[in-house]
Amino acid sequence: MRNNTAYINKVKAHILSHLNSFQHSATIYEASKYSIEAGGKGLRPLLLFTALDALGTDLDQGISAASAIEMIHTYSLIHDDLPAMDNDELRRGKPTNHIVFGEAAAILAGDNLLNESFNVIAKDQSLSAEVRIELVETISDAAGQSGMISGQMLDIEAEMKTASLDELETIHTFKTGALIKAPVTAACIIAGADEDIQSELERFSEVIGVLFQIKDDILDLEGNPELTGKNTGSDEKKGKVTYVSELGIDGAKQALRKKEEEAYSILNKLDDSIAVSGLREIVQMFAQRDQ
Amino acid sequence: MRNNTAYINKVKAHILSHLNSFQHSATIYEASKYSIEAGGKGLRPLLLFTALDALGTDLDQGISAASAIEMIHTYSLIHDDLPAMDNDELRRGKPTNHIVFGEAAAILAGDNLLNESFNVIAKDQSLSAEVRIELVETISDAAGQSGMISGQMLDIEAEMKTASLDELETIHTFKTGALIKAPVTAACIIAGADEDIQSELERFSEVIGVLFQIKDDILDLEGNPELTGKNTGSDEKKGKVTYVSELGIDGAKQALRKKEEEAYSILNKLDDSIAVSGLREIVQMFAQRDQ
Repeated sequence: MRNNTAYINKVKAHILSHLNSFQHSATIYEASKYSIEAGGKGLRPLLLFTALDALGTDLDQGISAASAIEMIHTYSLIHDDLPAMDNDELRRGKPTNHIVFGEAAAILAGDNLLNESFNVIAKDQSLSAEVRIELVETISDAAGQSGMISGQMLDIEAEMKTASLDELETIHTFKTGALIKAPVTAACIIAGADEDIQSELERFSEVIGVLFQIKDDILDLEGNPELTGKNTGSDEKKGKVTYVSELGIDGAKQALRKKEEEAYSILNKLDDSIAVSGLREIVQMFAQRDQ
Repeated sequence: MRNNTAYINKVKAHILSHLNSFQHSATIYEASKYSIEAGGKGLRPLLLFTALDALGTDLDQGISAASAIEMIHTYSLIHDDLPAMDNDELRRGKPTNHIVFGEAAAILAGDNLLNESFNVIAKDQSLSAEVRIELVETISDAAGQSGMISGQMLDIEAEMKTASLDELETIHTFKTGALIKAPVTAACIIAGADEDIQSELERFSEVIGVLFQIKDDILDLEGNPELTGKNTGSDEKKGKVTYVSELGIDGAKQALRKKEEEAYSILNKLDDSIAVSGLREIVQMFAQRDQ
């Protein structure tokens, strides 16, 4: 697991080297680099490497796919923060991209990270053409109208009305779930995993995607603002429908525990075929995180 | 050539069918569809099919690549028109995307068309994995920081100072040239063209890319506003550096003729190996267009 974490830094270095290598605008380079460097905890790359590790495959083979997914996650945050979207001036305590570089550069830097994410995979000569094009398909499925982009739009539209918990789960499935499932599917493609194992691992990724979101909603109420970077109770103030607003704080915690158990039970089933200990740690990390 | 033109409609139908098939947000679907339907003359797909035809390859094999390039061209216009960029409310006489759907949906619909462009190629089972991944690489090279996106940023920055003709040519090479070259390279990849022929065809595409831009600048001064959809002399009013402002209208026309001759001379050289008559018509069309 410690080894997998080290790979998050390799991903960041790989992205920065790519951004620096093929470019003709200093502004696009600086703006793209800024948000990658300000980047998050690298949960999606970690998940990809941990799944690869569980499948017994060399982690180096996952660098381009993990880079692509992290670039897409980052571009979505840049565009989400724009005045026309969430209009956020700070992310993790740092000024957002458009505050530093202006709106035009932020839109283009976001476009750039999305575009280059597929370029990074295409240029990875260590993977076969078959694996690379399958990665492009899986990741663009997760990031586009079948996944994240539709989720973002549904989320914006849900703010204008009262969504039910069912609608909320649909939104999360697309908005955040798709890009939590993608690293797991990508790892299975790279490792050439058996169909049965892939389908169980994908079910696992769907469960921890929901778990991740429930935890997010709990942290919004009970988290330490210095760690989460958000004011406590901001969802409630905005009148957002969340797991906490629908189930109460105790109900949300119970739902979290249920998802935790569901995730462990899938891993127990897989224990005979693959090395699941790293994935167990991921469940713990998702459920116990304080930021 | 008439056959090639018919393929532009096949491309539009292919894009619309893709947009409709895999989606979970009616707004994203409608907004993406709106700009594709409002779409332009399909010059880039036409160029791709004409090059494929010249190389003696079945035009059906070019549909996914042509769709991807047209989707990328369309997304770039949606984002270009945004208030933070060119702030245009009309394009070809129709309200721009953000005027109809709002800024947030327009940003996301642009992101969607870019994302799905690579998905369309990945899903094309009629092409080998090798060809598909090479197309993804070539097209993302042309559309991203090595090409169009850098060109767009340089163009925005050039408006704040006086650019020289040299700087202008650099900007055009990236901003519009890259996505005029991409269809030609894509056709060569699909056809498995000889290296020599590919390199001549790419030089040809660079020449007609410049020709296209010179004609654009001439049309801005002498075009019929009802056909061009732009007020006459708008470049001059904005104080933009153009071929006309630098060379005068006669000098610009002379430069246009020179590029025309250069393009024909490349085609004459290629005449022994491939069927260049369609490409000759493209040169004529680019040089003589009135919109």
